[in-house]
Amino acid sequence: MSFSALYKDYQEIVENWLDSVISKHLFQRSGIHEAMEYSLMAGGKRIRPVLSVAVCDMLKGDRSLIMPYATALELIHTYSLIHDDLPCMDNDDFRRGKPTNHKVFGEAMAVLAGDGLLNLAYEIMLADLTNEKNNGLKKAQTARLIAEAAGISGMIAGQVMDMESENRDISYEELCTMHKNKTGALIRAAVLAPAILLDASEEIRTNLEVYAENIGLAFQIKDDILDHEGSVEITGKSVGSDEKNNKATFVSKLGMDKAKELLKSAVEKAVEALKSIGNNDFLVKMAVFIAQRNK
Amino acid sequence: MSFSALYKDYQEIVENWLDSVISKHLFQRSGIHEAMEYSLMAGGKRIRPVLSVAVCDMLKGDRSLIMPYATALELIHTYSLIHDDLPCMDNDDFRRGKPTNHKVFGEAMAVLAGDGLLNLAYEIMLADLTNEKNNGLKKAQTARLIAEAAGISGMIAGQVMDMESENRDISYEELCTMHKNKTGALIRAAVLAPAILLDASEEIRTNLEVYAENIGLAFQIKDDILDHEGSVEITGKSVGSDEKNNKATFVSKLGMDKAKELLKSAVEKAVEALKSIGNNDFLVKMAVFIAQRNK
Repeated sequence: MSFSALYKDYQEIVENWLDSVISKHLFQRSGIHEAMEYSLMAGGKRIRPVLSVAVCDMLKGDRSLIMPYATALELIHTYSLIHDDLPCMDNDDFRRGKPTNHKVFGEAMAVLAGDGLLNLAYEIMLADLTNEKNNGLKKAQTARLIAEAAGISGMIAGQVMDMESENRDISYEELCTMHKNKTGALIRAAVLAPAILLDASEEIRTNLEVYAENIGLAFQIKDDILDHEGSVEITGKSVGSDEKNNKATFVSKLGMDKAKELLKSAVEKAVEALKSIGNNDFLVKMAVFIAQRNK
Repeated sequence: MSFSALYKDYQEIVENWLDSVISKHLFQRSGIHEAMEYSLMAGGKRIRPVLSVAVCDMLKGDRSLIMPYATALELIHTYSLIHDDLPCMDNDDFRRGKPTNHKVFGEAMAVLAGDGLLNLAYEIMLADLTNEKNNGLKKAQTARLIAEAAGISGMIAGQVMDMESENRDISYEELCTMHKNKTGALIRAAVLAPAILLDASEEIRTNLEVYAENIGLAFQIKDDILDHEGSVEITGKSVGSDEKNNKATFVSKLGMDKAKELLKSAVEKAVEALKSIGNNDFLVKMAVFIAQRNK
């Protein structure tokens, strides 16, 4: 089976899970339910939950076990995009080829829809934690991993650094720390969640962590390259917005050639880490895909 | 011991818990840590966590057990105030006698500080869930109760209704539903959390629920009365803002006299419910306090 067919299969699993979230929690065709569904179903790549399912497969785990956590990760990611796009933040008009949430539903609703998605992520994880007595501790540890990745020691810290870096020259180290938090933390949680839930060995966890850190880095470098080279038609979001906001990027800091070199080396490190724990074909290709995507 | 001395004792316990949250999670004297601390320590009444500790005492439970959940409730309440005050929401300049969060730290930081507080509430509860194997299920059920109260079936639903009710004539029933969600849900969770955590009997839970619903209602009616009659010097927040935003209130719907009657009857029902489960003196006086406070 080709990578793109396999990716599509994984995406379909995730879409079905998100559909069930919608029919259970966001069934009203108006108000905040509609605003939350709009951004959740705006056609993202689903990289985080796809990673969780793929790692779950690699560890030969039951996919239904990881479902609430993979879903929660996509909800958290989506909330962060909605708040990030707000006029007081990045002030972006387009996201995933569609008008941003506040452009359609207004700023107040966009704030609340983001809040609602973040909270719903925890409602879903805690519902799983209370429905099943077995493995309660492993589930709680998995939810905690995600919570810490999403919070002020993880993703939110990255967003704060991002915001504070506008119109200010930040160092290369600061740029790395910012992205390690802003994008890296949630990707790391997506990769490690199944390992914790399924109680994988220390060796597997350590290597998955190296894999996750490097695809996280690759993801961000590629994002920066696309912001410089991509087109709004293909990426589906505003292009050149980093430049517009005077934001430091891997491209502005290193130049395009060095940025592409660093991207290549990150992918190699990610693949190397996988080799020592079984060389999972899909996850290897996923690393390559993240570096080669055009949106 | 007088009610106010007892209340002060309970508040002190809560303040100490919040201090420890700050020293553990919000220790940086800049950025988002400072913004989160600013609102968290802006001198609120701490009604929700105080209720949780008092119910915990009534049930003869160990106070340290309820600590992470009582703390989480105050964090969630504080985040909701920060987002509620934003220019795109209620656009309030004062809260608890101080400039609102976005007035001091800017809108972007206020959005992120709110997000950070909401997420931290779950980090704290999940840390408790993973630190202690005993009673894991009861703890998960308590965290789930709080999550559902805070989300789109609870507090956020109320905020959406509140926002959508501006400049629109809503029915008395809609007004009640709105407040049952907006303020009531979190107060209900504060009162029921110790009952779930400590596995109280069905009779106790049912009566605590009646108590909680009625003090929640009393709280909101009193809020509306203060918005009409209070002064900014005493309440510490903008007065007449409901009127300014054309919002329906218990006073505008029922008139001042009927609103005060309803307030009195809610307090009576709350006290009645307590009688059948032991007539806890502090909780009785708490109901009266909520109705008589001047801020």
